[in-house]
Amino acid sequence: MPQKESVIALLGLLAYGELVAFDRIATDAKLAPDLQKRATVAAMASAEIRNYQRLSERIKELGGHPDEAMRPFVQAMDDFHDSTRPHNWLEGLVKVYVGDSVADDFFREIAQFLEPRDKALVLEVLHTPENGKFAVQEITAAIDAEPSVAGRLALWARRLVGEALGQAQRVAAEHDLLTTIVLEGTGDLAKVSELMKRLMHNHSERMTVIGLNN
Amino acid sequence: MPQKESVIALLGLLAYGELVAFDRIATDAKLAPDLQKRATVAAMASAEIRNYQRLSERIKELGGHPDEAMRPFVQAMDDFHDSTRPHNWLEGLVKVYVGDSVADDFFREIAQFLEPRDKALVLEVLHTPENGKFAVQEITAAIDAEPSVAGRLALWARRLVGEALGQAQRVAAEHDLLTTIVLEGTGDLAKVSELMKRLMHNHSERMTVIGLNN
Repeated sequence: MPQKESVIALLGLLAYGELVAFDRIATDAKLAPDLQKRATVAAMASAEIRNYQRLSERIKELGGHPDEAMRPFVQAMDDFHDSTRPHNWLEGLVKVYVGDSVADDFFREIAQFLEPRDKALVLEVLHTPENGKFAVQEITAAIDAEPSVAGRLALWARRLVGEALGQAQRVAAEHDLLTTIVLEGTGDLAKVSELMKRLMHNHSERMTVIGLNN
Repeated sequence: MPQKESVIALLGLLAYGELVAFDRIATDAKLAPDLQKRATVAAMASAEIRNYQRLSERIKELGGHPDEAMRPFVQAMDDFHDSTRPHNWLEGLVKVYVGDSVADDFFREIAQFLEPRDKALVLEVLHTPENGKFAVQEITAAIDAEPSVAGRLALWARRLVGEALGQAQRVAAEHDLLTTIVLEGTGDLAKVSELMKRLMHNHSERMTVIGLNN
């Protein structure tokens, strides 16, 4: 089992992810084409804050301080979101669907290396399938209505994944506590590479589902 | 008891208020001086969405459509918020404390004219005293640290109330369904004027509490 400091770092990364996700999804809500959809997306944002609170509580239980645990990841995550601001409703939804799913897959794998309680917490704060379902519905409906949007959204999705991988490598390089969890959990570098392959495979399948794998 | 259409209109006004409050408070969260306070304010925003969902459900139960019930109030409320965008953390908190409290007082009075179930719902979706407490703490701490901010915030609070009253009069003039609830509930115009006096009295007391009644 990873040492306490590593777990605090991992929960800090997740916690700041929730704060940023709240902010980002709350902003996306304003792009909604009607009030009901605006409320649906605002509710997604709110769910992130409940998750933040649970992670923050657990960081304190483990003897950490939420602000300190999050701080190392602020720059990389803000940079990622600043460089991938959605320009419209559909770009926002693709970001939710593509970006959050890759991150969720990653944390779902890492959760297996944690002790039962932290494993359960991490799995519980991952996004609900409902968020994805809503995004998929909206995106496929838009592509059905105007097939030309698929090309633009596919480009956008590729850019998102490129930026996300860049920032993930930066975080990995700068934070030994996190890379240790992954290395010790998987066993060796070859297994880390297998993990990355699984993430990319799942990502590719999701792109196919929404008709963006052209 | 007011007719169903009037209640739907009132709940629509409240529901759109929640959506806008979510948006506005979520934006304010980014102005927070640290991550913990940012999370506290984001959690306040999330509470508005849970309230929105309850109001929206009740509108549907009464045979209304949430989007239609909210639409008549979109312009006035957006105009109010566009013309009173906080420029910093403290202005945001004063807006929460001053603005939400006046609105809450108003709806608390109106709730008395509704049947028990709607009365309970309206009272329950009003803001928790915790929001106010947090705002009061932050504002008084800031004034203690730098007394000169009090003058600027007092001006800001007066502007807020002026803009809010302007938009409230516009809403009242345009929406007979709402004015009917107030008129029938209070009994006559003299009572409406007493109600307004109570609102202004309470507002003035709150300003004194945070040291802005100079």
